[in-house]
Amino acid sequence: MMKSPSSEHFSNKTALNKGGKNFIEFEEIVRYSETDQMGVAHNKNYFEWFEIGRTEYCRQKNISYKDIEAQGFYMVVVEAFCKYKKPLKYDQKFIIRVFLENITPKKVEFAYELVTKEEKKLIASGHTVHIVTNSEAKTCSLPPHIINSLKAS
Amino acid sequence: MMKSPSSEHFSNKTALNKGGKNFIEFEEIVRYSETDQMGVAHNKNYFEWFEIGRTEYCRQKNISYKDIEAQGFYMVVVEAFCKYKKPLKYDQKFIIRVFLENITPKKVEFAYELVTKEEKKLIASGHTVHIVTNSEAKTCSLPPHIINSLKAS
Amino acid sequence: MMKSPSSEHFSNKTALNKGGKNFIEFEEIVRYSETDQMGVAHNKNYFEWFEIGRTEYCRQKNISYKDIEAQGFYMVVVEAFCKYKKPLKYDQKFIIRVFLENITPKKVEFAYELVTKEEKKLIASGHTVHIVTNSEAKTCSLPPHIINSLKAS
Amino acid sequence: MMKSPSSEHFSNKTALNKGGKNFIEFEEIVRYSETDQMGVAHNKNYFEWFEIGRTEYCRQKNISYKDIEAQGFYMVVVEAFCKYKKPLKYDQKFIIRVFLENITPKKVEFAYELVTKEEKKLIASGHTVHIVTNSEAKTCSLPPHIINSLKAS
Repeated sequence: MMKSPSSEHFSNKTALNKGGKNFIEFEEIVRYSETDQMGVAHNKNYFEWFEIGRTEYCRQKNISYKDIEAQGFYMVVVEAFCKYKKPLKYDQKFIIRVFLENITPKKVEFAYELVTKEEKKLIASGHTVHIVTNSEAKTCSLPPHIINSLKAS
Repeated sequence: MMKSPSSEHFSNKTALNKGGKNFIEFEEIVRYSETDQMGVAHNKNYFEWFEIGRTEYCRQKNISYKDIEAQGFYMVVVEAFCKYKKPLKYDQKFIIRVFLENITPKKVEFAYELVTKEEKKLIASGHTVHIVTNSEAKTCSLPPHIINSLKAS
Repeated sequence: MMKSPSSEHFSNKTALNKGGKNFIEFEEIVRYSETDQMGVAHNKNYFEWFEIGRTEYCRQKNISYKDIEAQGFYMVVVEAFCKYKKPLKYDQKFIIRVFLENITPKKVEFAYELVTKEEKKLIASGHTVHIVTNSEAKTCSLPPHIINSLKAS
Repeated sequence: MMKSPSSEHFSNKTALNKGGKNFIEFEEIVRYSETDQMGVAHNKNYFEWFEIGRTEYCRQKNISYKDIEAQGFYMVVVEAFCKYKKPLKYDQKFIIRVFLENITPKKVEFAYELVTKEEKKLIASGHTVHIVTNSEAKTCSLPPHIINSLKAS
């Protein structure tokens, strides 16, 4: 497989050896409409799962992403990456892990792992980079109370 | 923005300075359902546009991807990356450029650029890496006639 | 609003006055990617929620839809209808109710209600009609054990 | 199949016997991501094609739906119906026909037919009903110039 510096940059970060506070996980399941004619989940859905993961990350940190937007701050995706290891089948349950990789007032980075429910085998990994904008799509800075919530254990 | 070795690896490849034969382009338009509440095209759709681009690339090389699968060969996505530069709005026309970056019997790499219709400004760029499998999801090799078609000018 | 005989045909069926055994309900939540630029969930997602509802209906009847397909039976959608009453917002939790309206060996009909989580106000209602086919898309008959499972209380 | 008054209400309207002025058609193609594990286009995509059809209908009547929204008018879907006759496969080209069934200042109804490209065989038919709202989701009335444009031959 192609040497992928970007994915290696993130590859040594797993739930086990990181064990950091800025990590959440939850269970999802593959919808029928998320499969394609190859009989497995289509590659674009992983980016939707990453996004569900961000929403859940915020919720578990007691600050909903909906509220962040209501306060006028948008985390616009400027980069998205996924490395696919194992296929996902219809109705398969799996775990989504979300890691807050880095956060500054103007930029936020998340990393993700999808693992099997039972044996925790890696299904896919990836990351997204976000810049912070206001409702007019101008870059701005996240206020400290939002940053602190997202970083809280 | 985050230093992204992977995207830089691909960043000096543009239609202008490459000008290679393994390049096609065509026009697309943003569907209403592809927007989200931010008022712009949702990030996951870019990966769908990359895929439409691959289908179109094959078609313009006179070998449909549908036929490639009918012959028992699947180009399974193992890596996907997108860097978002400018937003896309509902009903906006734009150009999808597809580049065959590399092809071996067992692996194929495509790069993509989305540019504005008029001024050809960069909207997004990305790449995908594919391994070749048979219908049982076992890795296999593309036959020469398919490789030659995909590489043909 | 347009007179809609089809929806009226189904309109007097609610969880409260039906109270039948062939009824399940569960909670869902609106994903960010399911919104459009109007700021509410896009109309096509309701048909995806109906489908998730069918999967959940089967699961709660102790026969997974995945297993039904594995046994060679497909419930192909031949008709789908939705009446939209109230919008759904990003991150809003809501209840999906699924009713087995009618089942014969060759045809299955489901009805659906989406209601708000707290006050159980109607968000949308609809139905789908399915014919039974084998894996070659030929119509066939569901065996008694599947019909009995789906009808079980 | 279930007796469906709603679909019969619309069933005698075909491009051939209607031949009305309020009718447009155009070609579409099935995307890979629009298939599911049954190997055919997923049922929810038909509602996306109906919507693309509405956008195209407006465009061919020289008033873009984007402009209608820019003027503060939204055609909110309150009812959607589809009857599926034949499956659609990946990369299959087909024709989308859109009919303006009825238009008043407060309500608009469209009907749709999807037919095969060559023999014009019916793939699916359906309809949508829309109420007109302003940007605050309050019902309002379409101005005469928009109604006249949509009704123009």
